[in-house]
Amino acid sequence: MTQIQELGEFRLIDALTECIELQNESSKVGVGDDCAVMNYGDKDVVATTDLLLEGIHFDLTYTPLKHLGYKAAMVNISDVCAMNARPTQMLVSIGISQRFHVEQIEEIYAGIYLACEKAGVDVVGGDTSASLTGLTISITCLGEVEKDRAVLRSGAKETDLICVTGDLGAAYMGLQLLEREKRIFQSGQDEGFQPDFAGKEYILERQLKPEACVDTIKYLREKNIVPTAMMDVSDGLSSELLHICKASGVGCRVYEDKLPIDYATASMCDEFNMNLTTVALNGGEDYELLFTVPLSEHEKLQGLEGVHIIGHITEANAGAALVTRDGQEMKITAQGWNAFKREEEK
Amino acid sequence: MTQIQELGEFRLIDALTECIELQNESSKVGVGDDCAVMNYGDKDVVATTDLLLEGIHFDLTYTPLKHLGYKAAMVNISDVCAMNARPTQMLVSIGISQRFHVEQIEEIYAGIYLACEKAGVDVVGGDTSASLTGLTISITCLGEVEKDRAVLRSGAKETDLICVTGDLGAAYMGLQLLEREKRIFQSGQDEGFQPDFAGKEYILERQLKPEACVDTIKYLREKNIVPTAMMDVSDGLSSELLHICKASGVGCRVYEDKLPIDYATASMCDEFNMNLTTVALNGGEDYELLFTVPLSEHEKLQGLEGVHIIGHITEANAGAALVTRDGQEMKITAQGWNAFKREEEK
Repeated sequence: MTQIQELGEFRLIDALTECIELQNESSKVGVGDDCAVMNYGDKDVVATTDLLLEGIHFDLTYTPLKHLGYKAAMVNISDVCAMNARPTQMLVSIGISQRFHVEQIEEIYAGIYLACEKAGVDVVGGDTSASLTGLTISITCLGEVEKDRAVLRSGAKETDLICVTGDLGAAYMGLQLLEREKRIFQSGQDEGFQPDFAGKEYILERQLKPEACVDTIKYLREKNIVPTAMMDVSDGLSSELLHICKASGVGCRVYEDKLPIDYATASMCDEFNMNLTTVALNGGEDYELLFTVPLSEHEKLQGLEGVHIIGHITEANAGAALVTRDGQEMKITAQGWNAFKREEEK
Repeated sequence: MTQIQELGEFRLIDALTECIELQNESSKVGVGDDCAVMNYGDKDVVATTDLLLEGIHFDLTYTPLKHLGYKAAMVNISDVCAMNARPTQMLVSIGISQRFHVEQIEEIYAGIYLACEKAGVDVVGGDTSASLTGLTISITCLGEVEKDRAVLRSGAKETDLICVTGDLGAAYMGLQLLEREKRIFQSGQDEGFQPDFAGKEYILERQLKPEACVDTIKYLREKNIVPTAMMDVSDGLSSELLHICKASGVGCRVYEDKLPIDYATASMCDEFNMNLTTVALNGGEDYELLFTVPLSEHEKLQGLEGVHIIGHITEANAGAALVTRDGQEMKITAQGWNAFKREEEK
């Protein structure tokens, strides 16, 4: 018998899906990217699904229900964006334990609807059920893109520029802060304890209310830029870079001094005595877009607000490395979030 | 605060989805049918999703993991068939508690793949995660049908014939049998207890390994029969009939002596001292197709193996009624399965 922890999520998925051969004419891309891709005439349709379980993916101690719904929807919308597609439909399933009231479920849906409204998505179906255990949310999101315009992980070429939107590590530091305040609260040492979140709004919002890069996708389309490879940063930049390098058969160089980091993230890192570069590389849940474009598109990228060029693609033999401020090369390793790791290993 | 049990599943869904207005051009049919319907050129694409939770939808005491996977896939495939569509793609999410080994998860997937192979479906994506609580399976299934050929619940017309495939009540009696043997086993009264399932294979298979009516959909297409309304029988015939009557604004007459019931179901009913007609009307999980066709299609239906005409559609004022063997009319009421009811109320 093999323990699931021994394999980890990615190898478990590999083991479970290695035998699949796509049979239907409409099935274009199967397991292994941010979304599956189907073709119908001049449209490609992408589909992604996420299962969110209480105690694993969210902690109701510090997650307001409306935020939970919002985030659950947004992370799926983000996966659709990561294919260069426009998010269009959503199916929402929810398993509800007895301790919830109708009004609380309505709060979750209010968050889902808010995210969908922002991203132009229609909720078209779903499933509701009682749950004997915790709260369970499963979301499937569909999106549309012109035929053959969906961007996979596998198209990055040598000399391509590596771009990332927004900034990195903030959602992770938001989580650290929430977890710290929860520990203090639960220890009961400080009677009448009220968490102090003043000045920390940005990192908390990044953790509790992430935004998918719908506007970036629109802009890329307007400027007629088709990235060669793209993913969203959910498990951490390092992990996503390695996915792109592996799928594309290339290497990469990313520059430490180019990593976009917000002041609030740096300040919180300092307070926690953590290494800022490690946090930017490995902190998950940023839901920014990581993409590669041919060098020739360099000029077009200039007008694209919030997009940072952080490095370039190399040949495979060069491996994936971070070039530090002092010019050293450090191999990039994935320390991405692993839901199957035991708590003590995390 | 409103208890969810007060509302029940259907009214909860109504409350959560009443404000939705579809915005995207591709969104054709939203919440309220077996599947959502999207349009892409000359194809309509249908999508359905189901969330299956341990202890609510399945009991691992008597459900082999491969059967569980098979059934989880088939019930979604059945929803696609219920739209008159050909099932094509599936996304599979699974939340796994620590007590499971890789080999056990592979068993679940083996069942899913077997069902998909039978129905011609490609598994194109999904999600895997650890679970702190029970086993969780969420499946989304897509299907295709020619534009405007998807069949909703809302098209039944007065004088239409009401048809149902296969037979009714067997899955429910299979469940009763499994639950009885479980109780005997757990009571520990009978040392060395071995459940006796001889002669009960059919009803057990109907519960543990249901089949979607993929062939019926193919046949209807070959014969160019487009039903006016269609659903699959998952909550029980009564419940589904009422859905069609409500959505179509019609009434119905169904004849007790026309209800298709297998001998094994009748025999088990006898053993349990249960009313056979009640079981056929209200037992869920048959995954047969219930559909209506214009009276003019009567002849074409003759060649359709395993399809039974059980009644006809009436005007709305006539209500929905069962005509008993002795010619009495009994109002049809939904006693369909309600996952939100407390155990003692069931």
